[in-house]
Amino acid sequence: MSQTVPQPPASPDSSSLPALRVAVLGAGTVGTEVLRLIAQQGDELAHRIGARLEVTGVAVRDRTKDRGEHVPAALLTDDPSALVREADLVIEVMGGIEPARALLLEAMEHGASVVTANKALLAQDGASLYEAADVHGVDLSFEAAVAGAIPLVRPVRESLAGDRIQRVMGIVNGTTNYILDAMTRTSADFGDALASAQELGYAEADPTADVEGHDAAAKASILASLAFHSRVRLADVHCEGITSVSAQDIAAAGRMGRTIKLLSIVERVEEENGERISARVYPALIPDSHPLASVSEAYNAVFIEAEAAGSLMFYGQGAGGAPTASAILGDVVSAARSRVHGGVGPRESRYAELESIPLEELRSAFYISLTVQDRPGVLAEIAGTLSGYGISISTIHQELLHSREEGSQALAHIGISTHRALESAMTASLDMFSSTATVLSIDSVLRIEGD
Amino acid sequence: MSQTVPQPPASPDSSSLPALRVAVLGAGTVGTEVLRLIAQQGDELAHRIGARLEVTGVAVRDRTKDRGEHVPAALLTDDPSALVREADLVIEVMGGIEPARALLLEAMEHGASVVTANKALLAQDGASLYEAADVHGVDLSFEAAVAGAIPLVRPVRESLAGDRIQRVMGIVNGTTNYILDAMTRTSADFGDALASAQELGYAEADPTADVEGHDAAAKASILASLAFHSRVRLADVHCEGITSVSAQDIAAAGRMGRTIKLLSIVERVEEENGERISARVYPALIPDSHPLASVSEAYNAVFIEAEAAGSLMFYGQGAGGAPTASAILGDVVSAARSRVHGGVGPRESRYAELESIPLEELRSAFYISLTVQDRPGVLAEIAGTLSGYGISISTIHQELLHSREEGSQALAHIGISTHRALESAMTASLDMFSSTATVLSIDSVLRIEGD
Repeated sequence: MSQTVPQPPASPDSSSLPALRVAVLGAGTVGTEVLRLIAQQGDELAHRIGARLEVTGVAVRDRTKDRGEHVPAALLTDDPSALVREADLVIEVMGGIEPARALLLEAMEHGASVVTANKALLAQDGASLYEAADVHGVDLSFEAAVAGAIPLVRPVRESLAGDRIQRVMGIVNGTTNYILDAMTRTSADFGDALASAQELGYAEADPTADVEGHDAAAKASILASLAFHSRVRLADVHCEGITSVSAQDIAAAGRMGRTIKLLSIVERVEEENGERISARVYPALIPDSHPLASVSEAYNAVFIEAEAAGSLMFYGQGAGGAPTASAILGDVVSAARSRVHGGVGPRESRYAELESIPLEELRSAFYISLTVQDRPGVLAEIAGTLSGYGISISTIHQELLHSREEGSQALAHIGISTHRALESAMTASLDMFSSTATVLSIDSVLRIEGD
Repeated sequence: MSQTVPQPPASPDSSSLPALRVAVLGAGTVGTEVLRLIAQQGDELAHRIGARLEVTGVAVRDRTKDRGEHVPAALLTDDPSALVREADLVIEVMGGIEPARALLLEAMEHGASVVTANKALLAQDGASLYEAADVHGVDLSFEAAVAGAIPLVRPVRESLAGDRIQRVMGIVNGTTNYILDAMTRTSADFGDALASAQELGYAEADPTADVEGHDAAAKASILASLAFHSRVRLADVHCEGITSVSAQDIAAAGRMGRTIKLLSIVERVEEENGERISARVYPALIPDSHPLASVSEAYNAVFIEAEAAGSLMFYGQGAGGAPTASAILGDVVSAARSRVHGGVGPRESRYAELESIPLEELRSAFYISLTVQDRPGVLAEIAGTLSGYGISISTIHQELLHSREEGSQALAHIGISTHRALESAMTASLDMFSSTATVLSIDSVLRIEGD
């Protein structure tokens, strides 16, 4: 056996290649990682592109802050507008709606292609960005905006472009998955799990965008638009967060062989006279045996069902500096190749113009839990109400609640899972429960998915 | 609640769009599905592309055979050469090396872009195809050649183009996974499991390409070339099939909390003076808890580890008419968009020119099983041999074999798992065992992966 180790190939020399001017907007966790990768893999990237990436500036709010070796102070600028006007490629990782929106429009107007991770901006005003890209003949890419490092935008937009996507269902927010996973493992309630996620850096000081489902809803609107070739606005996405998921809900799910996950679901709904689409985000009970049930901690995973491809699953890190930077650089290489070799990336595709179906017209299976008076006939009354609205019960779990005070009325807790029923029928049933003395409180209303 | 269902959008009219001439080579299971999708989704595809796909002919060997409604007899031709010379896009689903190779070269020479599912051809002579695409400025795409419907080629080539892939490990052959899964579930031996797979259509009448690992090796060579920007030929891939995996091996793996899967592994091997790459296919014992262990039946799944992205997993159907057709049509839409909007798809990227490391220089953990004389000192002798070659033992399982004949020598079966050791050291140990009277037979040599 020969022990000779060949000399490593000389690091390919890229100095003779032309340069592309790259502007970076933002130098937080993701921006810093983007700059690190460009610095460390510059020669490799140049050979993949056919041109060198030359970072011409990094726009930040505070130029005096030290940002480590990969963000040279000389590149920092607080004039992002001047920076983007002279760029071939603009990488936007500053987040927020403004000034990001204005800067990207300005960049495209001056002929730069844009790579962004800004899901909130895309969900809120993707239309004007797409239009600007179209008018000015530049690329607009945003792989990093959905599910971090997981290649998802490109597969949906390109790999499945010859297929008919029926449904996309996934866990696309790492923070809420971390919290629900912790609640499941430790029986903690939401507040404690959130506090511990914040301590460990998995949740932000203001966790609203994550725990209320807004982040997942923005991603759902992007995925639905791509999957169904229609413009799906953030307002079209029904959104419920996880703040009201209780330790009792998790325990009840466990008894049913199920796990609670925050799901983003976008799907075609075939109807008699055609089809509409649904995009929604809510916590749901899925079977423990479902592949999404075992997605732990802050990981993301997405299922896609397409007519010809069948079921596909993608799994990986949905957030974090390096994973997000990986997705951004993939887009940068593509956009840069377009610059060098001609051609344009995919444009907005909305020829199908499918309408969104309002939530109340959808059919879902439910888990509801109620606190009721413990007396004969209560169960029959509740079952009767549901049945009156065409809702059929799958399982019932009843538990006597021990009251702490002498002489107080006897109470029971009832957990009911239903077969699929119209959302509007469930709403009507719950209204009825609210107005009856028998039901003291409606403790939870959750959907059941994945069967 | 309004029950009004909006009228379905009028099927978008594509008749005013320009046409692209599409030639299809082959009308087997995959070809038929490709034609079905083009026929059924023609208008949708036209809007995604900006041009209509007009199938100008389908090359088959036997023009008289009826191929169903989606393969009109009028399109059948037995002159593929004339067909490809007049095409804008050629879809090759005939398989085999010739005449596929000559036809694709002829197509590109005449300016057509090519979409192929032909892994054997790409692995054997990808270089000349890439070169022709380059010289003639056309696209060469082959998503369907690796892992069927699972978007894998595009993510590796494009989504991860800004990252540094360290390792790809996956199950990329459905037939062998079906057989190993059946052996695991039913304790059947290889022959019976193969026969049943053949009956059910999961294995071909001549299963050689699958069970000997050749198909998986072709895919490994394609993946390694893309992942490491180097030309990795089929001959560079170490290939072992599953024909010698026994029911005893599966049972032994089970005792160790492991499952046997046929893995395709391609990875960078960092060395003192640089790096080389390894591409190999062999059956290996992986922990039951590893996500690849639960990939059942004919499904495929692939893990990718990249520097910035971390671990990614892709899962789906790796074969079959419709899934393969989905992957092909994704490529067709991309190549067609290049025709309409300009630009070219990714070219061969081999600037890194990394060399392949010979298997014997790699380090692996092993499971070996031996039939030995049952007498004092045998275990010490075997352990001594291994230790002499620097191989350290992790676990030993010994079982007395009951001999059927009176007076015959007492035999034992020994199963040994080792820590990671040089392949060449294991080869030398096995040579030594072969030449000693103590060891009557070497029953299995399998690697252990996924820890």
